[in-house]
Amino acid sequence: MMNKMKIVVAVDSFKGCVSSVELGEVIADAIQDIFPKAKIVKIPVADGGEGWVDALQPVLGGERITCLVHGPLRNQVRASYAWIEDTKTAVIEMAAASGISLMQIQEGNVMRSTTFGTGELIVDALNRGCEKICLGIGGSATNDAGIGMLQALGFHFRDKEGQEIKDGGAHLKEIADIDDSMANPLLLSCKIEVATDVRNQLYGKYEAAYMFARQKGATDEQIALLDDGLRHLANEIRKKYGVDLQDCPGSGAAGGLGGSCHLFLHAPLLSGISMLKRILHFDETIRDADLIITGEGKIDAQTEQGKLIEGILESAEKYNVPVVAITGNCAEQSEAMKKNPLLAIFSIHDAPVSLEQAMNAGYACCHVRQTIHSVMKLISFGRKTCS
Amino acid sequence: MMNKMKIVVAVDSFKGCVSSVELGEVIADAIQDIFPKAKIVKIPVADGGEGWVDALQPVLGGERITCLVHGPLRNQVRASYAWIEDTKTAVIEMAAASGISLMQIQEGNVMRSTTFGTGELIVDALNRGCEKICLGIGGSATNDAGIGMLQALGFHFRDKEGQEIKDGGAHLKEIADIDDSMANPLLLSCKIEVATDVRNQLYGKYEAAYMFARQKGATDEQIALLDDGLRHLANEIRKKYGVDLQDCPGSGAAGGLGGSCHLFLHAPLLSGISMLKRILHFDETIRDADLIITGEGKIDAQTEQGKLIEGILESAEKYNVPVVAITGNCAEQSEAMKKNPLLAIFSIHDAPVSLEQAMNAGYACCHVRQTIHSVMKLISFGRKTCS
Repeated sequence: MMNKMKIVVAVDSFKGCVSSVELGEVIADAIQDIFPKAKIVKIPVADGGEGWVDALQPVLGGERITCLVHGPLRNQVRASYAWIEDTKTAVIEMAAASGISLMQIQEGNVMRSTTFGTGELIVDALNRGCEKICLGIGGSATNDAGIGMLQALGFHFRDKEGQEIKDGGAHLKEIADIDDSMANPLLLSCKIEVATDVRNQLYGKYEAAYMFARQKGATDEQIALLDDGLRHLANEIRKKYGVDLQDCPGSGAAGGLGGSCHLFLHAPLLSGISMLKRILHFDETIRDADLIITGEGKIDAQTEQGKLIEGILESAEKYNVPVVAITGNCAEQSEAMKKNPLLAIFSIHDAPVSLEQAMNAGYACCHVRQTIHSVMKLISFGRKTCS
Repeated sequence: MMNKMKIVVAVDSFKGCVSSVELGEVIADAIQDIFPKAKIVKIPVADGGEGWVDALQPVLGGERITCLVHGPLRNQVRASYAWIEDTKTAVIEMAAASGISLMQIQEGNVMRSTTFGTGELIVDALNRGCEKICLGIGGSATNDAGIGMLQALGFHFRDKEGQEIKDGGAHLKEIADIDDSMANPLLLSCKIEVATDVRNQLYGKYEAAYMFARQKGATDEQIALLDDGLRHLANEIRKKYGVDLQDCPGSGAAGGLGGSCHLFLHAPLLSGISMLKRILHFDETIRDADLIITGEGKIDAQTEQGKLIEGILESAEKYNVPVVAITGNCAEQSEAMKKNPLLAIFSIHDAPVSLEQAMNAGYACCHVRQTIHSVMKLISFGRKTCS
């Protein structure tokens, strides 16, 4: 009988509720209540959104730099990123400066929210001599197609009168002139990679505005305006650069920030979970594991949610490691998840609950603990039936 | 390695949603998907309410008698009970004739609903020469203190003018005269036992009307009237018989039907699950089991719900058999359940859902199956870690 199980805990944050690191603690504790001798390896994971820096820094090392930047509505925000001096690398998450948790979700706010602060973080890193940036985009409060970020980096977007356009997706359709002549020259010596698990295009009924602006507080009418703005920008870009951003999967990520990164920062748009797995040497960590516990707040077949778990399942399948997933909502699993050999998937709810109740951090942690207890007791029972 | 597990499936109905028998089928199928060689023993269980006859008849045998009786609102209802000729025994559930699923839950209905039909079933059994009745009370549409049942059995309850009072709890306070002189004489040669897991008293803030009339559609005002009626009846009974029904735990069961059974039918009020376990030889069935799967629609620390699972846990503990419970709602577990060594308890929900969604039979069966699959896969995984 095997005495020491190796269990890898790699759970995404329950967004807007509990962080990946906190969930890892709760789960490890709960495992140890039942299997005190188990070897537990906690790996905070993230898909490019909130928690991206927390997930990478433990492995990459370096220090945390905190900057005062402009938040989504030009409010003052303290945002931090990871800086690894040795390799001149910065790990930045846009959510730290321009994230949805920094803005009240109310009608109209997403019309004028800007990614300017994300640009400021990049400028700070460039000024330190940064040669490589891993930029996680996700959890955005914005739908400005990254114009704010580009403005902070010296790009100009002017209207017919030659005036710089105002902040936010509401003004995209006024863009008449794109001027990259004063772009920050430090960008030339810096390689940027973007992490996102969104493959949406810039405009259209299933793309950036229509899929994501509602959760940022836009009304139906506002969503249509934002979509028009993105379409207008794509046309202007096509005229000036001969490039069709609509052809780029992921250009609609983070309210169109993906497209700007791709075109103006020459950044490849990569899968967040794949990038993370590579940097963390995830496959090497799990190959001799007996069990992986993963999960995220919501698993959804349509949006970026669920992609992280798919990535983890892909690795688990390669090395034949069983996976238990816990989540607040797995009603809509993707086909990939259904095909993958998930050992078990549980929602943490013990009753019909409202979304509001379910999003309470105390509720979530308590129910995650209970669920993991039950899971571990069942495994323990299975072991006993052999003896 | 033990090749054949014996798994006992003893799940109560998910009330108003799926029967105990159906759930047993779904669960047995799901177990066999993962453990094709497991020996599965399905035991439908019930606490005295809906499913009481279904639970007992497979063991007691006999035939099913169907009668046309008066439903809760004097509508025509086909109700059946089990009749075992050999032992002159009838198994009757009041829910078949006077149950909540036979009445629309809307304002006022509980004020005039009657247990008359339950009395008619008893009369039918008496006319067959019945010597013993196991009467399950639970799931009632009524708050008439069993007056309807007694009227069907020849008792009279008259107002100040000497008129028989009308149906329902609304009229209890008009009772001025109780006349048992014309009670059905066959009652004398019949022993009646009542199964209930409710220990509430007749009247008061935590008793029959206040605890249960709301779910039968009563408003705050109506609940107060019903409670007054029950108190008035108790006073009249005290005057005439010198008996205080309020001293009898369970007198408030099924809208006061418990009290009437106790006093007028000389029936002991017994724990439904205990009576069932005795008749089914439950302990003998589980003593060599490897696992018990139990559950019910809702587990509640306050009401009768959860008592069935407590009863099963009690037996399981005696023989050291682990238990997995599944439910639609285990947010409020009783202290007894928390102390008992439950291996695992899972709600079947995969997301925040409304009660309405949760009460859909298709949803429930599908999610029960998924949950049992996950449970069995975890046990199977545990077994594999030993080899």
